Amino acid sequence: MQRKDFPSSPLGLHRVIEPAGALPQAAWRVDPSPGLWPDEVRVRVDRLNLDAASFRQLSEAVQEGPGDAAGADGGHAAAMRAAVLGIVAERGKMQNPVTGSGGMLTGVVEEAGPDSPLGLAPGDRIATLVSLSLTPLAITDGLARWDGRSEQVPCEGHAILFGRSIAAVLPADMPAPLALAVLDVCGAPALTARVVRDARSGGTPPVVAILGAAGKSGSLSAAAAREAGARTVIGLVPTQAEADMLTKADLVDEVVIADARDPAAVAESVRAAGGPAQVTVVCVDVPGCEGGAVLATAGGGTVIFFSMATSFSAAALGAEGVAADITMLIGNGYVPGHAALALDLVRAEPGVRQIFESRTAEG
Amino acid sequence: MQRKDFPSSPLGLHRVIEPAGALPQAAWRVDPSPGLWPDEVRVRVDRLNLDAASFRQLSEAVQEGPGDAAGADGGHAAAMRAAVLGIVAERGKMQNPVTGSGGMLTGVVEEAGPDSPLGLAPGDRIATLVSLSLTPLAITDGLARWDGRSEQVPCEGHAILFGRSIAAVLPADMPAPLALAVLDVCGAPALTARVVRDARSGGTPPVVAILGAAGKSGSLSAAAAREAGARTVIGLVPTQAEADMLTKADLVDEVVIADARDPAAVAESVRAAGGPAQVTVVCVDVPGCEGGAVLATAGGGTVIFFSMATSFSAAALGAEGVAADITMLIGNGYVPGHAALALDLVRAEPGVRQIFESRTAEG
Repeated sequence: MQRKDFPSSPLGLHRVIEPAGALPQAAWRVDPSPGLWPDEVRVRVDRLNLDAASFRQLSEAVQEGPGDAAGADGGHAAAMRAAVLGIVAERGKMQNPVTGSGGMLTGVVEEAGPDSPLGLAPGDRIATLVSLSLTPLAITDGLARWDGRSEQVPCEGHAILFGRSIAAVLPADMPAPLALAVLDVCGAPALTARVVRDARSGGTPPVVAILGAAGKSGSLSAAAAREAGARTVIGLVPTQAEADMLTKADLVDEVVIADARDPAAVAESVRAAGGPAQVTVVCVDVPGCEGGAVLATAGGGTVIFFSMATSFSAAALGAEGVAADITMLIGNGYVPGHAALALDLVRAEPGVRQIFESRTAEG
Repeated sequence: MQRKDFPSSPLGLHRVIEPAGALPQAAWRVDPSPGLWPDEVRVRVDRLNLDAASFRQLSEAVQEGPGDAAGADGGHAAAMRAAVLGIVAERGKMQNPVTGSGGMLTGVVEEAGPDSPLGLAPGDRIATLVSLSLTPLAITDGLARWDGRSEQVPCEGHAILFGRSIAAVLPADMPAPLALAVLDVCGAPALTARVVRDARSGGTPPVVAILGAAGKSGSLSAAAAREAGARTVIGLVPTQAEADMLTKADLVDEVVIADARDPAAVAESVRAAGGPAQVTVVCVDVPGCEGGAVLATAGGGTVIFFSMATSFSAAALGAEGVAADITMLIGNGYVPGHAALALDLVRAEPGVRQIFESRTAEG
């Protein structure tokens, strides 16, 4: 089933219905029809993995809505299903209109167009590494197997990958939920490794501080920094319980406890542990961590912001306000080879796997 | 009048009243009392320069408020004065509580503490290069000379500079309003020059695209890119009138017209003019320019976001969504030597001065 009625764009512009000219992520509505342009791939979907911010917003909206008046759990599940099905029917993709975010999906490649550059073949079991917020999607089972209580949504339907979409074949040597959780944050360790290597090539190996080092992206970034040749890796966490977890995982050289939103406390604790840092990595998903990251970083150093809670203006004005001559990077989720690098870190570092398994078990 | 009752912090933490531990910029209230700690400087203020976003918000709030029921222009001026005086009395600094932003000030150094590292002496006429949003300020004239119609506010009072604050002595060879406007955006050309030089040192001179090249930060960044050795400088503007202005100023090699919020149009017009760019500089102060900047930039290239309208998540997810392996920088307003570099560009490039004078005349 091939379409050539008008040319396709590797960015998916040909699937955008409205507004015209928008990229698929910014679009209100895209075309999820199954017929493929020559550079596309169609995936038989088996699971959606909604991102945390979107799932929380939907759950809260459903609680407050009239559908919950019955109070029955079946009512909650039905309302959650209706919410997701409504969005996908209206928009042609699973992009929460409030949060703007999506998530990722897993499935099996059904058909790959002859001009697809993704290297996928029918039967490959994959996870998408581009957001659901730009991926054309149609659902055919009414989400009947989803109880509405988990971000992981069993689902039947199909999705479309564009020429420039990214997908990873799921590894055979680890459970799918673990692989999914790793792939979800795989941009962070890849960019951290690159920045640490660049700093090393410029002179001495850098001191690296990871804010939120006992989380998923934080633990991977810590392992990546060490492997890339950091002199010292300092892991900052908010509580004694997380400090114990991080110490046990043996991923960092120094563990410090501080509130990442308290600039003076962050700066002082990093300094006392061997800082200031030449590279600071922000993996704490709460607002207000910009000032501490800036102050913990040495002149000439680099801060990488991975948290979606980062405020652009707070970072820009915060650095200016203290005359900090530092480079501040927006954490790009795409670095070539990021999926393989992250999965290899999980294989090589039992501590990373420990942290992921405890976090995935929590939900 | 020297204070040593407790030690000072070069960041100004000792002046923060609430909440304790916050940096002065994030604080709700700071202490503007005139007595100096040994590393501080007191400035006799003559003019505040409110930032555009703050001035617009105050003007709109005053229009809508009950004070304008009389409809008299005197009522507007009185309401604007009351708004600014109220903020400064309550917070000890001129930080608009809605926008979070401030502006800058000019004045004459009254006293410099013996340990101040700023190199200022009594009688120096200066502009602050750190934001009013973190600068302790007291107003003594009730803003009697301000008509409420301009961002430039004649003002008597004093302000405090910390050890790590930054100020520039105003040049004798250009009018103060021009110097102020240049210093307000002087971080942009300095960071652009650094990134262009770094790109050059890595191989061939880069193609540089400036989005919003006929604006203040845009024209300075274009001149800086050329001076730093760009191969080609492409200036993108929204209208024929701006294109004519930019052509006349002779600051770029190629002038293109496109809506910076239309990703495909930005990418195509930059490509047609010699792109994609190795360095893209975003100086357009409207939301929604992230996608175009990403698409206009070559793999391995760099985007510098200077616009405060930049969305962190739109940039991060946008680059990931199109698998763009690019470096994205948060435009830090501080680079050592930035004031001198920007003032020198105005002296050397008549085109920059033309653009600033036409823009400053507009308001």
